[in-house]
Amino acid sequence: MAAAVDESQKWVLMVTAQTPTNIAVIKYWGKRDEKLILPVNDSISVTLDPGHLCTTTTVSVSPAFTHDRMWLNGQEISLAGGRFQTCLREIRSRACDVHDKEKGIKINKKDWDGLHVHIASFNNFPTAAGLASSAAGFACLVFALGKLMNVKEDQSQLSAIARQGSGSACRSLYGGFVKWIMGKDDKGTDSLAVQLADEKHWDELVIIIAVVSSRQKETSSTTGMRDTVETSLLLQHRAKEVVPKRILKMEEAIRNRDFTSFAQLTCTDSNQFHAVCLDTCPPIFYMNDTSHRIISLVEKWNCSEGTPQVAYTFDAGPNAVMIARDRKTATLLLQKLLYTFPPNSDADLNSFVLGDKSILKDAGINAPEDVATLPPPPEIKGQQFKGDVSYFICTRPGRGPVVLSDETHLLNPETGLPK
Amino acid sequence: MAAAVDESQKWVLMVTAQTPTNIAVIKYWGKRDEKLILPVNDSISVTLDPGHLCTTTTVSVSPAFTHDRMWLNGQEISLAGGRFQTCLREIRSRACDVHDKEKGIKINKKDWDGLHVHIASFNNFPTAAGLASSAAGFACLVFALGKLMNVKEDQSQLSAIARQGSGSACRSLYGGFVKWIMGKDDKGTDSLAVQLADEKHWDELVIIIAVVSSRQKETSSTTGMRDTVETSLLLQHRAKEVVPKRILKMEEAIRNRDFTSFAQLTCTDSNQFHAVCLDTCPPIFYMNDTSHRIISLVEKWNCSEGTPQVAYTFDAGPNAVMIARDRKTATLLLQKLLYTFPPNSDADLNSFVLGDKSILKDAGINAPEDVATLPPPPEIKGQQFKGDVSYFICTRPGRGPVVLSDETHLLNPETGLPK
Repeated sequence: MAAAVDESQKWVLMVTAQTPTNIAVIKYWGKRDEKLILPVNDSISVTLDPGHLCTTTTVSVSPAFTHDRMWLNGQEISLAGGRFQTCLREIRSRACDVHDKEKGIKINKKDWDGLHVHIASFNNFPTAAGLASSAAGFACLVFALGKLMNVKEDQSQLSAIARQGSGSACRSLYGGFVKWIMGKDDKGTDSLAVQLADEKHWDELVIIIAVVSSRQKETSSTTGMRDTVETSLLLQHRAKEVVPKRILKMEEAIRNRDFTSFAQLTCTDSNQFHAVCLDTCPPIFYMNDTSHRIISLVEKWNCSEGTPQVAYTFDAGPNAVMIARDRKTATLLLQKLLYTFPPNSDADLNSFVLGDKSILKDAGINAPEDVATLPPPPEIKGQQFKGDVSYFICTRPGRGPVVLSDETHLLNPETGLPK
Repeated sequence: MAAAVDESQKWVLMVTAQTPTNIAVIKYWGKRDEKLILPVNDSISVTLDPGHLCTTTTVSVSPAFTHDRMWLNGQEISLAGGRFQTCLREIRSRACDVHDKEKGIKINKKDWDGLHVHIASFNNFPTAAGLASSAAGFACLVFALGKLMNVKEDQSQLSAIARQGSGSACRSLYGGFVKWIMGKDDKGTDSLAVQLADEKHWDELVIIIAVVSSRQKETSSTTGMRDTVETSLLLQHRAKEVVPKRILKMEEAIRNRDFTSFAQLTCTDSNQFHAVCLDTCPPIFYMNDTSHRIISLVEKWNCSEGTPQVAYTFDAGPNAVMIARDRKTATLLLQKLLYTFPPNSDADLNSFVLGDKSILKDAGINAPEDVATLPPPPEIKGQQFKGDVSYFICTRPGRGPVVLSDETHLLNPETGLPK
């Protein structure tokens, strides 16, 4: 055994990475292989700016570590789950020689099997908000471990590993516009993500997320999509007949920055995903009355303008992700949303509109009392639903994973334990 | 011209009929011919007891009438609509000789073209409650006119005329369990209703309707189904591949009084109908959070019992129609519903539970304060949603149209004007 992995040694090697979350505009719903997480159709997503929504993960290795451990948002969690183990095993099997000259650390390829890792992960948004935290989380875990272990595989190959942690995680390995190719191989080697365009390709787009208050406990997406595959008589038709054509159209819309087509495809695909959820036995409802009201507002506005101004899409929960064609539209949208879903009187504006707050300024909202001066949007006949939206996040398409500098480590560089 | 139709004569001849409403258990959604109202698939319904939900219509003829007139719930309404005109024309063209010896009135077949009718119609339930009032209304109009004009066609032939007033009206020409055969003929001659079984065939069933409070204006079913046909990519698959098999299974379930199969088909078909509404562009939401909660309650109860106790189905609105396997189950269901959706404190029990109030007695509810003593149903974790249901109607499968006695006329026998 090389000196490098002598357990008496005190060194700790670590890497910290940041990975974005993503929102599907052509939805993934239904697995053809539960264990390998192989989907029944291709999907396409937009990566969200990690400045507003991301996971930061520090992975570290030391001969002093006696077993693999992980902390999520400061709490130690079990790594016993099959999905964590799969990602760890797949990455370890691709580990290469590492030589950190500065620290004088040398790890040989074959040593990795005997070494344990400590992992600390942190989301800069509420985990429970239903904002695809597992996608960013598994993407970040795989990306960071890949850097730590000097894995030579390219981003697409890494995405196929992240996919086995959480399907949609594979799409968080790239910025901009990303396609998850379902693949044909039974072993899933060709079920991976590719970048369609980077975040600069279409940088007028502005994204506003409405985090919707809900009294319901939602069906987990794992359980939900299993039930849909087993019971929906519409899902296979969607997967085989509808989605393949939509994927081609969506790729073209993104290529041409054709917002009209992009919005139409995004909205109809979101609605069809929720339709197959409803066609499941027992039926799954992810959207609630607030979600419906947001759709109604956007649909009526788009209709009155004659051409789509805003696209909406909903994942496995009631939160609305709205994509505005440009900043001016986003400003108008935020005004309409704030009028319709004003904060509870005890909420301050600063915690009610998160992310890129400059849009709030553009909308003329500088203080809570300014919300009351907004004009009633004609789309929803001036009805108001105070407190039905918990908060908004203003963001945009963003970059893919990056390695962060040493100061950002979530683990103590000496002990490998959370700071 | 026969003396009978001398306009100076004062006689008025009238017939009053009562026709039930019906609730589809395999849904009709989508027309292949808008004008003739020809559907894209067969449907099956249960006729509801006219004692609780029905339309009563008086039709009258007199040489003194100068034009066709109609009153609905006491208000005169226009007969200019194409659907009224079609029904009137189709029935008139089949009119035969009428000889009322008692009154000394004789109308020859050929005289009908020169005679006008007065019609008065009355629903014994709120028209705006979304309880298929147009189905019962057109069925009653056609049935009553058929009697007045001595039309010789059988009930199925009449149903094909009522169909042209409102599609689902054709199913209200029979009691019990009714199938609307979509037919093949481009002219719609074979698109008509047949009775699968009468109301005595399966008389254990008890029906509870929850009339749900709603702030939304709903999409009319005419507009909604047109939009679905034009934009949903799932509807044709439903109509061609899914429904034909379900129809056969539902006929078998009804024949065998197989409640498990009946409930499963009823619930999944209701959900699929709402799924294709959601797959429409723009999407149509008929169910709201209250509807979802009712489904959740019933699904969880059915699941915990291991076998379905209650079926649910929703038409183009948020109201739930629940079919309980027997009276004991209906009593338990009503208890669970009253606990979960208690009346606003200002509502009295008598106007909160309508129809067959004996189920309320069986449930041990004799006074408003008894509602507060009900045990929390485990299915919905004791959550309560006061005021979210406007009222309940307890009913059962019921008979088809009947002619009522002269005392029930809604028009004055002398003047032919509303009483």
